[in-house]
Amino acid sequence: MATIAPGDLVALADEEGGRTLVRAQGGAQKLRGVGILAGERLVGLAWGDVLTHGSKTLRLLKPGVADLTAGLARKAQIVLPKDASRILFECDVRAGSRVVEAGIGSGALTTALAWAVAPTGRVFTYEIRPDFIDWARRNLEESGLAPLVEVKEGDITKGVQERDVDAVVLDVPNPWDAVPAAREALRGDGHFCAYSPLVSQVELTHKALREHGFHDLRTLEIIERRWTVGERGSRPDHEMLGHTAWLTFARKGV
Amino acid sequence: MATIAPGDLVALADEEGGRTLVRAQGGAQKLRGVGILAGERLVGLAWGDVLTHGSKTLRLLKPGVADLTAGLARKAQIVLPKDASRILFECDVRAGSRVVEAGIGSGALTTALAWAVAPTGRVFTYEIRPDFIDWARRNLEESGLAPLVEVKEGDITKGVQERDVDAVVLDVPNPWDAVPAAREALRGDGHFCAYSPLVSQVELTHKALREHGFHDLRTLEIIERRWTVGERGSRPDHEMLGHTAWLTFARKGV
Amino acid sequence: MATIAPGDLVALADEEGGRTLVRAQGGAQKLRGVGILAGERLVGLAWGDVLTHGSKTLRLLKPGVADLTAGLARKAQIVLPKDASRILFECDVRAGSRVVEAGIGSGALTTALAWAVAPTGRVFTYEIRPDFIDWARRNLEESGLAPLVEVKEGDITKGVQERDVDAVVLDVPNPWDAVPAAREALRGDGHFCAYSPLVSQVELTHKALREHGFHDLRTLEIIERRWTVGERGSRPDHEMLGHTAWLTFARKGV
Amino acid sequence: MATIAPGDLVALADEEGGRTLVRAQGGAQKLRGVGILAGERLVGLAWGDVLTHGSKTLRLLKPGVADLTAGLARKAQIVLPKDASRILFECDVRAGSRVVEAGIGSGALTTALAWAVAPTGRVFTYEIRPDFIDWARRNLEESGLAPLVEVKEGDITKGVQERDVDAVVLDVPNPWDAVPAAREALRGDGHFCAYSPLVSQVELTHKALREHGFHDLRTLEIIERRWTVGERGSRPDHEMLGHTAWLTFARKGV
Repeated sequence: MATIAPGDLVALADEEGGRTLVRAQGGAQKLRGVGILAGERLVGLAWGDVLTHGSKTLRLLKPGVADLTAGLARKAQIVLPKDASRILFECDVRAGSRVVEAGIGSGALTTALAWAVAPTGRVFTYEIRPDFIDWARRNLEESGLAPLVEVKEGDITKGVQERDVDAVVLDVPNPWDAVPAAREALRGDGHFCAYSPLVSQVELTHKALREHGFHDLRTLEIIERRWTVGERGSRPDHEMLGHTAWLTFARKGV
Repeated sequence: MATIAPGDLVALADEEGGRTLVRAQGGAQKLRGVGILAGERLVGLAWGDVLTHGSKTLRLLKPGVADLTAGLARKAQIVLPKDASRILFECDVRAGSRVVEAGIGSGALTTALAWAVAPTGRVFTYEIRPDFIDWARRNLEESGLAPLVEVKEGDITKGVQERDVDAVVLDVPNPWDAVPAAREALRGDGHFCAYSPLVSQVELTHKALREHGFHDLRTLEIIERRWTVGERGSRPDHEMLGHTAWLTFARKGV
Repeated sequence: MATIAPGDLVALADEEGGRTLVRAQGGAQKLRGVGILAGERLVGLAWGDVLTHGSKTLRLLKPGVADLTAGLARKAQIVLPKDASRILFECDVRAGSRVVEAGIGSGALTTALAWAVAPTGRVFTYEIRPDFIDWARRNLEESGLAPLVEVKEGDITKGVQERDVDAVVLDVPNPWDAVPAAREALRGDGHFCAYSPLVSQVELTHKALREHGFHDLRTLEIIERRWTVGERGSRPDHEMLGHTAWLTFARKGV
Repeated sequence: MATIAPGDLVALADEEGGRTLVRAQGGAQKLRGVGILAGERLVGLAWGDVLTHGSKTLRLLKPGVADLTAGLARKAQIVLPKDASRILFECDVRAGSRVVEAGIGSGALTTALAWAVAPTGRVFTYEIRPDFIDWARRNLEESGLAPLVEVKEGDITKGVQERDVDAVVLDVPNPWDAVPAAREALRGDGHFCAYSPLVSQVELTHKALREHGFHDLRTLEIIERRWTVGERGSRPDHEMLGHTAWLTFARKGV
């Protein structure tokens, strides 16, 4: 049975599906939703084991990308798994990919991108707000993904330094203004994605993409519906998130 | 500008979003939806360039996972991107992962899994129908992913040989019968996923998961809504797929 | 311009879409979400006019069915407009219809049914809980629809007294047990409807309907998505109700 | 047991849920989806009974509004039950209501409105295309609802003759241009509805409504999901309509 080694990152899973990230090292620390816990106490315990901590029952999980983004400290609204997972898929982001992203927000999408490009790829993230950069950097350092990410303070619509990247992923209010920069940065058949909460943003982005020679334009919305499956019977949850954003994908062309 | 080398796999993208896969080698061959084309004709052309072929305008794309699954020859109903992408994300499948899958169908989910675990991981696929195995193998060979996949003729509910795998992903009519085998195969905190079209399948799977010590059970449905974005205005497409399956996720525990 | 007469029922609409019902008569009374208001103050004001009351701006509306159900005092979860409207339509409930209903809950569906059958039809409502009966009766009296409704304390699965009714509408935990009573009550080609939150309820109801000679069985779910339409752009609301119930419709046959 | 009288309108329901309308009178006639049938053959049969006709099994139903709209001969895309039912509910259309409508299309929404206002209300329908008027009139005459409807060839954006109506319901490409006419026609707190397939139409209509003193603006989309409930288990149907239109509701104010 594999056990937790000193320094390992651990996701503590509570019984409601929550996640708290902690390193298996050091003394007592205060953890959101968990209370005071000494990280070193986790060393030697088995992955998948139960930790009883006060009134809580916590599972010790090797954090995957879903655990990492769920355990993230949030400053801005984050890109959720329903959208992040599809972005990785459509933009073909995997080990070795080189991806340009803007902006960073709390670093949720950055986390997913960095997780996917590891161990040999790289994420270049543009963000204009220093407070978001600080916040997201802390999240990336906590999850150990920081070495895969180059964070750049700057406005992507003013241009990018990278060339021949595999994908450009935009979560900015005016993605259409970043289309020329995306075109410059992308390889000949590279992937473009814009994450846009409003219909008008989608329409302006389509217009800019057509003007700049992109093709294979697709806009879609991903709706996630969780179910309660119980002894008495099954049904969709009463609570549901009504909307996050539309995903617009395209391919550059030469 | 990067160009196509002899032997490269190329996705020909038509203007309706269709994909046809072809190798940049050899003489005239008949391609679904494209007609007769000599593969060697593609050598030296730029990735992202346009190929005019008869009345068709085809883009030359380095195939990503979305292109590979879209270009797949289908025998059975395939697992679609909306579901495949979320399965990869929730089960934390990436470079180096070791994954057990059953059944293979046309190989669409196998393709996505193999793509994600490359170059160092491995997919072990159980399937009882030899005709599905043959069909899927041909698809995997066409896409060059076959070396990452070990296809096994057999019934996963009778047991599996692998141990300490990161994830078990089931697309079989009776996933609940495979829960004990999944438990044996998984690492301590490994990922379980069942893809089930019917509510009764979801309910029986939950019951088996609870009985076998799995936790963090979640069932969700992913609904994809495509939009038409045009000069006159924007709206969801009139055609829409009403349902594929529910995704049930869980984590093993020790 | 039509004005409010003494004794008229008025819906006070606030700026967030809320509704409070009040009679245009009598002195100061305490109103939910409005504060203290003298009903007689409304007499002579125009329908559609604005009433400034403290810090609130209230519109004076002749209450339609949507206002009546929105202004209802709630004890139990109510049947919402998305479902109530479709039930009226599929069961062909209109002026003169005779409808059997069970149970009454807070009287929201009863309100919609009574509104629709007025002035010449009738609603017969079975309910086993006296507290629900009292609560719903007060709501029906407040809206002036009480004369159209006959409330009966009793269990519909034990049988009904009415015969040759146009429709039977069930919002009870075990609609399948009420299928024989529904059959007895309905006219030869009468309309059946069951409102069921769980899939298992739907399945058992289908089974009972088939066994008792019903035909034209249809189960559907109505999903309502509200939009925010603003200066900056448009999008679906972030908050959304995930689920209420499935509607199962059928026709009796002879 | 109630039986069919000479001249009664009958809906023939096939086993797939289809509806064909026929009068119980006269000799052999050709009916869509049914074949040759003599209407007089239905006289004296029971409502709800089965008619075996060739290889078909047909149920004899007293047509309700859902049967009437399903049995309609279609020329244009019709307003479906999911939308028509909610329009009736939100606009408070019932016995005695006076409603202005534009345009008529194939007459499906007109049929629903006329059905709801019977026996004492009236529907005034504006339509610019004579071919739609002829087509819809034939449908209204077939269903016996024609006496409740006044069809007017004309452009509603140029003005309406009616005053003090309870509701104005618009299914035209430019509802915003009809907002002034709607305001003139409506009673002080009357109901406005626009049925619009495109987001841009919704946005322009909101702007016009605000400029013309309407309040309580609400835009929503109704999504209908049909289920297959079977022996093996239950699931949403694979086929689904992706989109019809947004419904925008408002109230006039004085």
